[in-house]
Amino acid sequence: MARIIQKYGGSSVANLELIKGVARRAVASKNEGHEVVVVLSAMRGETDRLMSMARGLNPDPMPRELDNLLATGEQVSIALFALACQSLGEKVKSFTGLQAGIKTDDDHGRARIIEITPTRIKTELAKGRVVAVAGFQGFNRLGDLTTLGRGGSDTTAVALAVALKADLCEIYTDVEGIFTTDPRVCEKARKINKISYEEMLELASLGSKVMEIRSVELGMNYGIKIHVRHAHAQSQGTYICEEDTDMEKTPVRGVTFSVNEARVTLLKVPDQPGVAAKILGLVSKAGIVVDMIIQNQSVYHPVGEAGTSLTDFSFTVPILDYPKAMELMKEAGREIGAEKIVGDDNIAKISIVGVGMRNHAGVAALMFQTLAKEGINLSLISTSEIKISCIIEKKYAELAVRALHDAFKLEIPS
Amino acid sequence: MARIIQKYGGSSVANLELIKGVARRAVASKNEGHEVVVVLSAMRGETDRLMSMARGLNPDPMPRELDNLLATGEQVSIALFALACQSLGEKVKSFTGLQAGIKTDDDHGRARIIEITPTRIKTELAKGRVVAVAGFQGFNRLGDLTTLGRGGSDTTAVALAVALKADLCEIYTDVEGIFTTDPRVCEKARKINKISYEEMLELASLGSKVMEIRSVELGMNYGIKIHVRHAHAQSQGTYICEEDTDMEKTPVRGVTFSVNEARVTLLKVPDQPGVAAKILGLVSKAGIVVDMIIQNQSVYHPVGEAGTSLTDFSFTVPILDYPKAMELMKEAGREIGAEKIVGDDNIAKISIVGVGMRNHAGVAALMFQTLAKEGINLSLISTSEIKISCIIEKKYAELAVRALHDAFKLEIPS
Repeated sequence: MARIIQKYGGSSVANLELIKGVARRAVASKNEGHEVVVVLSAMRGETDRLMSMARGLNPDPMPRELDNLLATGEQVSIALFALACQSLGEKVKSFTGLQAGIKTDDDHGRARIIEITPTRIKTELAKGRVVAVAGFQGFNRLGDLTTLGRGGSDTTAVALAVALKADLCEIYTDVEGIFTTDPRVCEKARKINKISYEEMLELASLGSKVMEIRSVELGMNYGIKIHVRHAHAQSQGTYICEEDTDMEKTPVRGVTFSVNEARVTLLKVPDQPGVAAKILGLVSKAGIVVDMIIQNQSVYHPVGEAGTSLTDFSFTVPILDYPKAMELMKEAGREIGAEKIVGDDNIAKISIVGVGMRNHAGVAALMFQTLAKEGINLSLISTSEIKISCIIEKKYAELAVRALHDAFKLEIPS
Repeated sequence: MARIIQKYGGSSVANLELIKGVARRAVASKNEGHEVVVVLSAMRGETDRLMSMARGLNPDPMPRELDNLLATGEQVSIALFALACQSLGEKVKSFTGLQAGIKTDDDHGRARIIEITPTRIKTELAKGRVVAVAGFQGFNRLGDLTTLGRGGSDTTAVALAVALKADLCEIYTDVEGIFTTDPRVCEKARKINKISYEEMLELASLGSKVMEIRSVELGMNYGIKIHVRHAHAQSQGTYICEEDTDMEKTPVRGVTFSVNEARVTLLKVPDQPGVAAKILGLVSKAGIVVDMIIQNQSVYHPVGEAGTSLTDFSFTVPILDYPKAMELMKEAGREIGAEKIVGDDNIAKISIVGVGMRNHAGVAALMFQTLAKEGINLSLISTSEIKISCIIEKKYAELAVRALHDAFKLEIPS
């Protein structure tokens, strides 16, 4: 007997028929002898409906009242789910975030869970009941309702798995699992059977369509085994879990790309302490989130006016923030003494990710050779322990993904 | 400065425009210097929408889960109301039944309020905020959500008025107030300016379309002054309050009628202890609610077999329960020794109500004369201290109402 948390997203409970299907699934797990806690999102479209009413009354709604409003969406889902379970002859009880003991901070609209006191859930599980819990919500020290922000139901599920020492956290969604790359770009993309937390975090742009990435972090911190799978199919999905020796046999787990960034480069910047801090300080003060940061070893001869060496400094920002970042750097560039500021928003970032690359030599080399063979030039390269990212011209993005997917034989199940 | 509870029903908050209007109204009261607590129902149609989803999943839904579902309706209303208030620049806070401290028993779907601990409401009033409270709902000793059943928001409003020692409880609705009779039947029907709790209770069939009758009882028990008025008009409505000497000057406050009852009569029943109890015991065991009960002084000579006297026994039941009641009585009649069971579902009940009739002689006489003059025969008569009811043939119902309205000069403001 295992204790299982099952989370169903809004698309999995979009109408009464789907809710019945979800109830059947939960009851089936129960009948296999498991303890089952189900976390539900609002029915698809419901949150938007509520938000549009709120905006119709107030363009700048108070977060506390908005939370009171939005929290009803998940409350409707759990009640309907419970009614569906009951019509299958199953004993069930539903709890709002408050009743489930999910205590958060006061940050309405994006509250963080402080602690969970799942006394009532445990009592009902002990009585042999299925328990349904409203995702996305909790309560603060005043007893006010709070919501956890985007993807909050995933966080609820994983946090409950931690609090209840669950054996498994199942994230049911409308896709089969995590894929080696975006199937729309590469038809050979294959569902990954097992992926480490770290890989999942590095593959954020693939994974975040499926699961909120902060909740993967939470799962990693507490060693919660997560199974991402399709809500209305029986096939196995992707397990997200601790790295194991099996995983290390594969150098690359997946290929990901993003075309939503732009590059800013400061040319011939004096290579001295505090310059990088100054540049990034300005950018972050403007509320711009920087992704890659690359500073080369000085490539110029030390002939600067003050006798210092010079270097090039590049970073990437979300494409929407690009004009602002360029403007900021043009001002700052004079002060810092950069020779020139250049930028490019016609770029793509291609990354390969895998814990196996730690032990496999030549992964980077194969990546660069593959891209070179396709005539793709690299404008920036950045690496972490389990990831290599390159900036290339945007038009080559899909070609690069397909070439790398082939080169690393990702179509072969590992 | 007064402390005012304002309750707005579902038709008063049916859409965003109406919610804005309700917010303006509450804020206007606040700006007149009052402390304002607003109790809201679910938007019109919302409870039906939720119920139909529930029934789509489960024809026999668990009351606890149904309450979790239905309670969202009022929660949406209070949040939207609060957002509307805020957009008017007003400080406001909304509370669910649980947050408002409305504790009930465990009877899901028709819970009764046990006590209210309005600590948070008082705190917010002291801070100069408008407070919105979800009507129709509370929580039980487990912390589960409960709903109060039909008209529950009226009960919430009056109970809050009691707990907060409010000066006034305003019930905003989609009619102007309580009328001397149904305006659809008698075009001379006039809005009553002031009515006593007792009269309102006796006029249930007029009043219950406007306000839940149990909440009038609650108001009476605690002396809460209630003002029933139109949500989107400025005119004064009807005050429901303690009887005063003014009221006693008018013999009759209103005329009411019902065509939803049927009469059952047991003829020549032995007039001995326990017979009435036996008859009504059978009826009530079948879940049938009896309205009028009339037993005449024996009109037959005491020539019964056992040497007892004989009497006729009549009662009225809801028309839907009539066939069942007749069937029950036909069985029971033999056992009891009734000579015959007769019944009639082609009847109307006409009542006149007024605290003034206590001190005015001839009220009953005028009623009977008036009906006689129209050629209307009376089949049953029943009186209480402030009410006289007659059963007549159904086709005369409207005629009787108009004739009595004229006879007692109800069109003249008292």
